[in-house]
Amino acid sequence: MDSPSKYLENLIKEFSKLPGIGHKSASRLAFFFLKRSKNEIDSFIRAISEVKLNIVTCQVCGGISDTEICSICEDPHRDASIICVVENAKDVLTLESASRFQGLYHVLMGVISPLDGIGPEELNIKPLMQRCQSTEVCEVVLALNPSIEGDATTLYLSGLIKPLNTKVTRIAHGLPVGSDLDFVDAATIIKSFEGRVDL
Amino acid sequence: MDSPSKYLENLIKEFSKLPGIGHKSASRLAFFFLKRSKNEIDSFIRAISEVKLNIVTCQVCGGISDTEICSICEDPHRDASIICVVENAKDVLTLESASRFQGLYHVLMGVISPLDGIGPEELNIKPLMQRCQSTEVCEVVLALNPSIEGDATTLYLSGLIKPLNTKVTRIAHGLPVGSDLDFVDAATIIKSFEGRVDL
Repeated sequence: MDSPSKYLENLIKEFSKLPGIGHKSASRLAFFFLKRSKNEIDSFIRAISEVKLNIVTCQVCGGISDTEICSICEDPHRDASIICVVENAKDVLTLESASRFQGLYHVLMGVISPLDGIGPEELNIKPLMQRCQSTEVCEVVLALNPSIEGDATTLYLSGLIKPLNTKVTRIAHGLPVGSDLDFVDAATIIKSFEGRVDL
Repeated sequence: MDSPSKYLENLIKEFSKLPGIGHKSASRLAFFFLKRSKNEIDSFIRAISEVKLNIVTCQVCGGISDTEICSICEDPHRDASIICVVENAKDVLTLESASRFQGLYHVLMGVISPLDGIGPEELNIKPLMQRCQSTEVCEVVLALNPSIEGDATTLYLSGLIKPLNTKVTRIAHGLPVGSDLDFVDAATIIKSFEGRVDL
């Protein structure tokens, strides 16, 4: 293919490296940038640079933060007696978008996955145990993804935390709201039976 | 929603402005940039800046180019007797990706659309007519999108070019390769009957 611009080709290549963006989307995005004003491009570039320069890991929960301790951990209105454990920092934003959970978070930075060489030592578990030992904490909600590794990590953490006399729960696995029995897979149906609740 | 980082929020907002990127994809992309190395981010930023600084419109065909005249128009191996007319510069890349057409291009920069206030004067038609008047050009292939505006522009251009004794053709409209009669719409079926060919 004979491209009339190496600069455009280069930008398309850069966009293609992003997750979920194939060659077609990449070239649509590159052409979109060709049409944008200098101001729009500058503010886009500034946003990208600032993210790398300014975002740090929160010293308490391991999530992302603009300051040493993130705004969630520092918020006095949040319930410090309940900690929700998630796999990664993105999960915090996803759970926050539902505006339901009012406690604090703890980011594991992964799950136990022997095939990928990730054992408990590679994860942010020690600081979690220290937080659990505080008398303030009454409940730990495990909100890891419903995968084999997520389930194994849930079991492992539950075994660690229970002896501290802290209540350990796991978010429910079952049919997503708005779905149809016809469209969910067998594993989800099995989970929804196992997790059935009294009415 | 309580976001732990205003820089991340800002980047998500910037990504959400891009075509075909909703809030979920935008936040996935923003987190992807958090994990990238400084080098990777710099080369991404450079690619975006260079596109705006260096790409110009080719003086001959109206497509994008790094130089005054684009590499396709300047290529002596291409067949200058046949000009393919497309709506926008992106279409040139799309047609080039099929590696079939060996002639030159002409970018109209839009189609006639009275509802959007775009008449023939707003389009890159005058330079096309000048190119067609050259004795070198034997055929003009119209490759506009099969929409009402595209079809109207095709008719309009055909009316302008035919009197110059230049052959005017239009690319075929019909069933796309790999599709199924069950899945194509009625308008495409009608076009495929109208454009049926002798065997």
